[in-house]
Amino acid sequence: MERIVVHDVGLRDGLQIEEQTVPTERKLQWLAQLAASGLDMIQVGSFVNPKRLPQMADTDELFRRLAASGAKRPGVIYTGLVLNEKGLERALACGVGYVCMGVSASDTHSRHNTGMGTIEATGRIIEMGRQALAAGVGVQLSVQSAFGCGFEGPVPADRVIGIARQFLDAGLTTISLADTAGHGNPGQVEALFGALAALGGGVSMACHFHDTYGMGLANVYAAWRAGVTCFESSFGGLGGCPFTAVASGNVCTEDLVHVLQRMDLRRDISLAALSDVAKDAAAFFGRDLPGRVHRTGPIPDHGKAAS
Amino acid sequence: MERIVVHDVGLRDGLQIEEQTVPTERKLQWLAQLAASGLDMIQVGSFVNPKRLPQMADTDELFRRLAASGAKRPGVIYTGLVLNEKGLERALACGVGYVCMGVSASDTHSRHNTGMGTIEATGRIIEMGRQALAAGVGVQLSVQSAFGCGFEGPVPADRVIGIARQFLDAGLTTISLADTAGHGNPGQVEALFGALAALGGGVSMACHFHDTYGMGLANVYAAWRAGVTCFESSFGGLGGCPFTAVASGNVCTEDLVHVLQRMDLRRDISLAALSDVAKDAAAFFGRDLPGRVHRTGPIPDHGKAAS
Repeated sequence: MERIVVHDVGLRDGLQIEEQTVPTERKLQWLAQLAASGLDMIQVGSFVNPKRLPQMADTDELFRRLAASGAKRPGVIYTGLVLNEKGLERALACGVGYVCMGVSASDTHSRHNTGMGTIEATGRIIEMGRQALAAGVGVQLSVQSAFGCGFEGPVPADRVIGIARQFLDAGLTTISLADTAGHGNPGQVEALFGALAALGGGVSMACHFHDTYGMGLANVYAAWRAGVTCFESSFGGLGGCPFTAVASGNVCTEDLVHVLQRMDLRRDISLAALSDVAKDAAAFFGRDLPGRVHRTGPIPDHGKAAS
Repeated sequence: MERIVVHDVGLRDGLQIEEQTVPTERKLQWLAQLAASGLDMIQVGSFVNPKRLPQMADTDELFRRLAASGAKRPGVIYTGLVLNEKGLERALACGVGYVCMGVSASDTHSRHNTGMGTIEATGRIIEMGRQALAAGVGVQLSVQSAFGCGFEGPVPADRVIGIARQFLDAGLTTISLADTAGHGNPGQVEALFGALAALGGGVSMACHFHDTYGMGLANVYAAWRAGVTCFESSFGGLGGCPFTAVASGNVCTEDLVHVLQRMDLRRDISLAALSDVAKDAAAFFGRDLPGRVHRTGPIPDHGKAAS
């Protein structure tokens, strides 16, 4: 069985929507704490135009300073999100070892983000994926809006699976299905990942869920049942719009790790270390974050192993 | 396939821990709204000593006034929680058609609630169940602390299944497993309900989860996968202690119904009607309730059917 892996994307998907930019030194501190907790993969930032997203302007600098700052640990994979050719160039120039790239299954969402429809954007991302592989860099390709779209509503499963098949045909086998809008439900999640697994081709599956409607961990469980082994999440549950009626962002890393502990899938990631980051982030932003376990602590087991 | 059923227990499990007692007229209004929403079962209150729980002191009166108040709808099952022989007598006297009773799988929890250990309490509840059946009243028996205990920690699955087997042997076939402390995880939930289903004996399974650690809907999905057909929940997500760091009570009825809609398991329960009750309860208690969907609204589908 493939090992279960947790990929924290809070420094990218969590911070990019915050009004307040987190200083580089604070990001390095959080990176060091996240790495020390025992997480497998940590997303450092996004190689996006700094004028468009000033919160991500220090991504190149963070990668360059990882080792000297003490934030780099052996065995931990530090990932960067790449949106276009220019971003890939920057990522390769600052020594990124693993890039995440994606395409939206929704034409409207795709055009909104990239100016291209899904078909054109898929061809481009596959070409970039091949370049990254050729440069010796790890690659994860995601299908965004895989479970529904904020612009379009429902997204046909066939569209999602069709894109994934193109990825696999091109030899790009690590594939994440991302619930960008938070529309996924667990039945749909288990079915869609089941269909992806059925493609074969050596696919390794990752998932990315938002918790807008309270289904985040339900979707995680459904994905796990379907054979997903890599789970994306954000410390504190950062990542939703903080100005909506319900503050709920990505699936929360501490809450996810807590479930994995309870299910005996991973016992070696420190909830205490993760909770420290979440608490520090809550203090930094001056508000409660949506995650639970950094506030409740884990379920007490009274010295007995969980049954 | 057995029909999926939603049982709102907010008027009992939600209100019993609130400092502020809800006036009888307001309860009747909420009962009428919940019934009009299309819910299948609604718990009206608990036949507990009114000195111990003044919030539940009007339970007999509520049952007596159901019909005349207009809160009673044909096809809806109105349930009452019964804790002891005196409570059963009261329930039968005021015309309750369906009683819920239970025993804790944790000896410490059982003694704390009833002064009896699990074995003695099980024998007593089975005898009461037989009496209720003989009186022509519907009966659901629950195993409380089935997934872990706030006093004891982990609870062995064998204890839970052993109690359920005694219920079945006595001809009491509607059985709820209740996660009283909120300790259940979805892997455990699917396994334990799987073991219960494997007992056969015509068992009909119900579940009762709290959302303390964010796993409420994940546990619902796991229970559904194992064949559970009756889901207990509270409007607004009422039911946790409002004074803890994380306000999270029972699984929230609106959020649950929303998932059931998205999974195409139930389309006939009105989210709008349920959300009105949750919003009114939030206004009554003067605080945000943990449920999501009464604040976000359902996932927009842009006029397309969900895929």
